Amino acid sequence: MSVGIVEPKSITFDTELRLQSGRILGPITLAYETYGSLNAERSNAILVEHAWTGDAHLAGRHSETDSRSGWWNALVGPGRLLDTDRYFVICSNVIGSCHGSTGPTSLNPRTGKRYNLSFPVITVRDMVAAQKLLVDHLGVRKLLSVMGGSMGGMQALEWATQYPDCIASAIVLAATPRPSAQAIAFSSIARWAIFNDPTWRKGEYHKNPKDGLALARGIGHICFLSDESMSAKFGRRFSARDGLFDFFGQFEVERYLNYNGFNFVDRFDANSFLYLAKALDLYDLAWDCESLEEAFTPVTAPLQFFAFTSDWLYPPYQTEEMVAALEKLGKPVEYHLITSSYGHDSFLLELETFTPMVREFIRQAEERQ
Amino acid sequence: MSVGIVEPKSITFDTELRLQSGRILGPITLAYETYGSLNAERSNAILVEHAWTGDAHLAGRHSETDSRSGWWNALVGPGRLLDTDRYFVICSNVIGSCHGSTGPTSLNPRTGKRYNLSFPVITVRDMVAAQKLLVDHLGVRKLLSVMGGSMGGMQALEWATQYPDCIASAIVLAATPRPSAQAIAFSSIARWAIFNDPTWRKGEYHKNPKDGLALARGIGHICFLSDESMSAKFGRRFSARDGLFDFFGQFEVERYLNYNGFNFVDRFDANSFLYLAKALDLYDLAWDCESLEEAFTPVTAPLQFFAFTSDWLYPPYQTEEMVAALEKLGKPVEYHLITSSYGHDSFLLELETFTPMVREFIRQAEERQ
Repeated sequence: MSVGIVEPKSITFDTELRLQSGRILGPITLAYETYGSLNAERSNAILVEHAWTGDAHLAGRHSETDSRSGWWNALVGPGRLLDTDRYFVICSNVIGSCHGSTGPTSLNPRTGKRYNLSFPVITVRDMVAAQKLLVDHLGVRKLLSVMGGSMGGMQALEWATQYPDCIASAIVLAATPRPSAQAIAFSSIARWAIFNDPTWRKGEYHKNPKDGLALARGIGHICFLSDESMSAKFGRRFSARDGLFDFFGQFEVERYLNYNGFNFVDRFDANSFLYLAKALDLYDLAWDCESLEEAFTPVTAPLQFFAFTSDWLYPPYQTEEMVAALEKLGKPVEYHLITSSYGHDSFLLELETFTPMVREFIRQAEERQ
Repeated sequence: MSVGIVEPKSITFDTELRLQSGRILGPITLAYETYGSLNAERSNAILVEHAWTGDAHLAGRHSETDSRSGWWNALVGPGRLLDTDRYFVICSNVIGSCHGSTGPTSLNPRTGKRYNLSFPVITVRDMVAAQKLLVDHLGVRKLLSVMGGSMGGMQALEWATQYPDCIASAIVLAATPRPSAQAIAFSSIARWAIFNDPTWRKGEYHKNPKDGLALARGIGHICFLSDESMSAKFGRRFSARDGLFDFFGQFEVERYLNYNGFNFVDRFDANSFLYLAKALDLYDLAWDCESLEEAFTPVTAPLQFFAFTSDWLYPPYQTEEMVAALEKLGKPVEYHLITSSYGHDSFLLELETFTPMVREFIRQAEERQ
């Protein structure tokens, strides 16, 4: 069952975080939610990491009249995969985002104005460093598990390599040790679409630059789906409203991209989108290391990986490089290649496929304690 | 050797073409070039079809000081695949383009002004109908072969199905019987990028809308390359000029897309780009037919197909659907799947791989005469 009504929380750490870039960011506010209770041994906490445009609202609803449940609601609640009768589940919004954590839309305490482009470039490692403050604050010394897909998977990888003693297991879905040139290319096209929007004004806008941001999101949607899922969903159907030979006539797939692009403008800030896109592009698990093996050397917790056959944004071969490096090091690693036509979005849609394997993996982590 | 200096030609047909949309277009001007001489039997003509942003300048140079050779120069000339000592080679610019043939940049004879968006939506079938006027004019009743890649391949397919008695063979590279939803999605993103450019002004611009068109072209470049070729060409290298943590710092792949995008603005018109993108999206070999088999039923000439393993814009499975349909009908068909990492662009780059097979295929067509 669902976790029901949950309360959004927020905490401000009056600290200065030294970022990977060398710049300083602080104070740090994090929006977060928790579900279930921390046990006396403080050994039942599971941290769930969100993807690019996600937020801390993992599960439940914010009020009786709230029509929208959290983004991974199906996985969290009594009796569900992340069983709140048993686990203390945490989800926090990453820094750089616009959903309550410190980001470019926050007020810069030094100027009293919105950061906008004066916000420093951040990395996935920085996001996790901020999260560590929260986990410490919640009194959790060692997370039973950290779990996430896409950018969430990158965060789980950072926990495993940067804070190896602070996790008992990690579950990484649809992630990559480093986005490919092609993935960066798509990201750069999305950035470019926003830069082209004259209302963006180098980040100093009063109203979200809708045309550029919607287009940027449209590009994302293509990358999140697959050739197969787009064919199944839209085929070559033409909008019933339009004539086939109208210059502005749209195919159904075109309408979908437009519709979802413009919807996105209401829920995400353009500057945040740009900062997080940059963080994704810069992500390299082996940053400052010679190899993936070197990067994985500190890992102690077992890692479980899922890749999806039709994910062409972070294709399975990229996950398999990580698995091979861990195996070479003799580290405990489990890998599942899931056959799915849903593309990168599979990690949000193939819940029934991976849930039993994740359940068993977490159970084993519990047993080891 | 090269064909040397060639003269661009142009012809205007004082006729009205009834387009697939039902609209009328005329008079029709076609820019074209020819290489070699038509023999007495008029049996040695080969028509080469260009792709989306191509032109009639297939081979040679326009003057002694011309630094740029035609787009498939390596294939055309004495002793080359399209041996001009032996064949009469024709290349014409498609209608809708901006390289000399009637298109949105042409003057509308009814108004004396540029067509811009009053130009009718055209299709690949319409392009070939216009070409047919030229081939007739040149005194060629039956082409020895028609050959093209990508949109050029679609044109070859139209010749094979709409004018089956007018060709003795067809060579189709990196084409599709109908672009997928994913291919249409990329096209629609490119359109959107231009629509978003305030200088586009619904097609009524004085200066090519550079930001939108460059972005649209950048999207195209991603589709023309492959994950593998982009990794090999750019990897994750960061521009040496920029700091890793600069907000506007660029990866090399990002610079490449920008550079090539803006270069494109000098040589292609935004409205033409939009009309041809639309023609690609609308392309369906089986238009008004129940199936590919029905569409291929009139075919008499042998068809030779090439697909490239890393072409994800028009992936091999789409060519294979055509081959299967032709085989089912018992039509003469030859298929080569070429292993290449160059993506859709393979048809412009894997010349040495496919040349011997095309040479043999044309030779057989000659022998049958």
